[in-house]
Amino acid sequence: MSSSARSDEGGMGVGLLGLGVVGTAVAKAIVERHRSEDPSVPLNVVAAVVRDTSRKRDVDLDPSVISTNLDTVVANPDVDIVVELMGGVDPAFDYITKALEAGQHVVTANKEVMAKRGSELLATAAENNVHLFYEASVAGGIPIIGPLMNDLTANKIQSLRGIINGTTNFILTKMAHEGADFDDVLSEAQSLGYAEADPTADVDGFDALYKISVLARLAYHTEVPVDVIHREGIREVHAKDFRYASELGYTIKLLAVAQANGESGLLSRVHPALIPLDVPMASVNGVLNAVEVEGDLVGPLWFQGPGAGPNPTASAVMGDVIRIAKGAPSNGSSSSAPKPFPIASMDDHVCQYYIRLTASDRPGVLANVARVLGDADISINSVLQKDTDIENGHADLVIMTHPARESNMQSAVSSIKELDSVLRLDSLLRVETYGDRA
Amino acid sequence: MSSSARSDEGGMGVGLLGLGVVGTAVAKAIVERHRSEDPSVPLNVVAAVVRDTSRKRDVDLDPSVISTNLDTVVANPDVDIVVELMGGVDPAFDYITKALEAGQHVVTANKEVMAKRGSELLATAAENNVHLFYEASVAGGIPIIGPLMNDLTANKIQSLRGIINGTTNFILTKMAHEGADFDDVLSEAQSLGYAEADPTADVDGFDALYKISVLARLAYHTEVPVDVIHREGIREVHAKDFRYASELGYTIKLLAVAQANGESGLLSRVHPALIPLDVPMASVNGVLNAVEVEGDLVGPLWFQGPGAGPNPTASAVMGDVIRIAKGAPSNGSSSSAPKPFPIASMDDHVCQYYIRLTASDRPGVLANVARVLGDADISINSVLQKDTDIENGHADLVIMTHPARESNMQSAVSSIKELDSVLRLDSLLRVETYGDRA
Ligand SMILES: NC(=O)c1ccc[n+]([C@@H]2O[C@H](COP(=O)([O-])OP(=O)(O)OC[C@H]3O[C@@H](n4cnc5c(N)ncnc54)[C@H](OP(=O)(O)O)[C@@H]3O)[C@@H](O)[C@H]2O)c1
Ligand SMILES: NC(=O)c1ccc[n+]([C@@H]2O[C@H](COP(=O)([O-])OP(=O)(O)OC[C@H]3O[C@@H](n4cnc5c(N)ncnc54)[C@H](OP(=O)(O)O)[C@@H]3O)[C@@H](O)[C@H]2O)c1
Repeated sequence: MSSSARSDEGGMGVGLLGLGVVGTAVAKAIVERHRSEDPSVPLNVVAAVVRDTSRKRDVDLDPSVISTNLDTVVANPDVDIVVELMGGVDPAFDYITKALEAGQHVVTANKEVMAKRGSELLATAAENNVHLFYEASVAGGIPIIGPLMNDLTANKIQSLRGIINGTTNFILTKMAHEGADFDDVLSEAQSLGYAEADPTADVDGFDALYKISVLARLAYHTEVPVDVIHREGIREVHAKDFRYASELGYTIKLLAVAQANGESGLLSRVHPALIPLDVPMASVNGVLNAVEVEGDLVGPLWFQGPGAGPNPTASAVMGDVIRIAKGAPSNGSSSSAPKPFPIASMDDHVCQYYIRLTASDRPGVLANVARVLGDADISINSVLQKDTDIENGHADLVIMTHPARESNMQSAVSSIKELDSVLRLDSLLRVETYGDRA
Repeated sequence: MSSSARSDEGGMGVGLLGLGVVGTAVAKAIVERHRSEDPSVPLNVVAAVVRDTSRKRDVDLDPSVISTNLDTVVANPDVDIVVELMGGVDPAFDYITKALEAGQHVVTANKEVMAKRGSELLATAAENNVHLFYEASVAGGIPIIGPLMNDLTANKIQSLRGIINGTTNFILTKMAHEGADFDDVLSEAQSLGYAEADPTADVDGFDALYKISVLARLAYHTEVPVDVIHREGIREVHAKDFRYASELGYTIKLLAVAQANGESGLLSRVHPALIPLDVPMASVNGVLNAVEVEGDLVGPLWFQGPGAGPNPTASAVMGDVIRIAKGAPSNGSSSSAPKPFPIASMDDHVCQYYIRLTASDRPGVLANVARVLGDADISINSVLQKDTDIENGHADLVIMTHPARESNMQSAVSSIKELDSVLRLDSLLRVETYGDRA
């Protein structure tokens, strides 16, 4: 690739690292649409790096552009903007670093590398006075990084709450509507292509954790290491829990939350949560994503849309690419950024809890459980006794508590498990607090 | 104000035109919050121009800063950013023009001047290589201009649909929930401060028209003169219509819509519309605003939040001010922007219609109406006969049509009005088309 290539064609050179689901959609957006639609911002795909050049790619690119040779993209002077769409930390972190150090702008959709090594990468970008943009890494096509970075900068962000993993939301929605069990719905999601063969990243909450870590760093100007974020996946949510939750006026969603205030600091958490049926988050179904941002000036804002998929993700990637091509403001030092937040402990989180036990069906069981909870300073809001199994002499006991501290609940749970009359603690789920609700 | 003022204090000088509801909130955001919170972007209020300097202002500004002297702001070399929060076209248009010509950036919340004279102002800004930003002019604190201008630039926008006037949405929500009549609810809204003493701008749809004109120009790169936009207000919506609409599965909202495709061109319209109860727009209640954007890459996106109020509006103004202070990319010529859309005629709009008539309660009336509709190529989907008044021998006839062309409906309506058996045509409302619905 001689340097004359660029000047011949004019405009900005784009190099793609990865030409998979998203990479192909981005290449198509540039080659088949952008160049004819918006000649005011000329873009050329100079090179694309893949693992396997023999794979067929569904985009009209000159085959000579596609190779396994990293040097066609990283540090190639014809490439002004490197678009990283490989995924993972290794080798993406090294490639992005090299590109930034070579003075190239980088756009990425990679939430994992931005969560685990994003602060280093952003610092490298600032040192080299180039951009590192990552709108597509969170919530697919929904503009959320952009609004936090630009439109909402005058606000102190009070909370970010979202359904930001489409796979788990698809699964939980099916479970809620069809009374189906987790394993069956997971298999169905896999056969539909909504879940990976190895579903861990999604169902165990890692994907949502990476995304909330990225959002929290941006909103709170604070390093949020992924291992300080509380994470629980959805494997332990059972069909029964949807039934009981709905009797109590709730559904169950995998929520990712970052909340902060001056006193307690910033708490980030990913876990299945009971959501009151009458708040909008309860109606975000299927693979949809939604993010609720509360700012102290603006109040509550709601963003909803397609959280993944090749075209929505390409929309976000292209937004960043065009922003750079138009000359986004230079990436100065952020040494005097707003005051960052300290990190709060999950132990101090306060919410209502939903507890489902399998207990002996005899008098005194509830009294025992109530005593243990009371000893931990937790009072009971309501109790359901359900699905009594007369033969085996046990029943489901569903307890909704009043708001309690996480650390108190964890110690109560250990004691409850030791009660003779309790066969099993089946579920412990947090209830998400909305507004003035008790 | 000597030029040393700015260099002494450092940072960017802001001059305010207007220190009313929004102006005061913006001044407070700069003086009382921004300067301590985010020292990385220093801003100073250099001057504020008002009509009446004797009025008390609820913000901690040196009184010497406030005057009626335009020269303290416009073309004052100490003022880098002029924030126009007076409202109206005259004198705002002239002041903004002068500021831009003097090389000052301008931020405005003024939808009327941006709708009526925005293209001229944007051209003046481009010629003088300064910014004219107007996020706050549409949907208050909801980031919508920013996403259209930045994040979604790779998309062809297929439609914009919104509830973007809080006053009318407050009124219609009350009418829907309480069965109240327009005049009563308007009085209540006025006493609560949700409607102006002269409510025309809101209830007759002008405010929504200005806003959709601003959004449509941005999304479709096309001049959208306000007089090509179809506009109807909500004065003709009656308590009865909510009752019948709800029986048919709808509620009624004042919608602002801009929709385009290559063949038919761009159609912009503001009118009360029947909205299916199960789409999200039906649940946007009270003073909330919501905008649905459909892009060809990203699919449907949803933005919701506070559409007015001093702090939400100040959030949007400050977002623009800080964007400029951080050095937004220079405002180059847009001569080679994407291909603009031709303007379509409302006559060609196709939708279902809801018609409410007061008709004689005798056989053959429906047949007459159906014949007239049939002659205009309009077929009937369903009919309700309601509120039969035996004494006077008439009844309400509510007709829901199949999709029909606007021009056909208008000619049918003239003929219906001439039928002997029809006493009055009380309501003609459009049904908004969603997805695959008939
Ligand atoms: N898919 C979505 O809807 C979505 C949404 C938002 C964000 N993202 C993010 O976007 C990124 C890409 O996702 P994707 O779904 O497009 O993944 P994908 O389909 O697996 O594509 C990955 C691409 O990277 C290439 N690649 C991987 N490792 C490489 C290496 N070591 N050297 C050279 N090339 C390598 C692959 O080459 P081969 O083609 O030769 O195998 C492939 O072209 C990920 O960070 C993902 O989290 C995806
Ligand atoms: N209020 C909202 O929630 C909201 C939301 C979005 C957008 N907006 C837009 O924001 C703008 C301002 O609205 P607002 O509610 O703040 O209006 P407002 O309370 O009526 O304030 C207008 C201000 O402009 C000053 N002013 C008016 N004409 C002037 C003139 N000829 N010369 C000098 N000063 C003049 C007034 O001075 P005095 O104080 O001396 O009378 C007052 O300070 C409007 O364009 C409006 O559409 C408002």
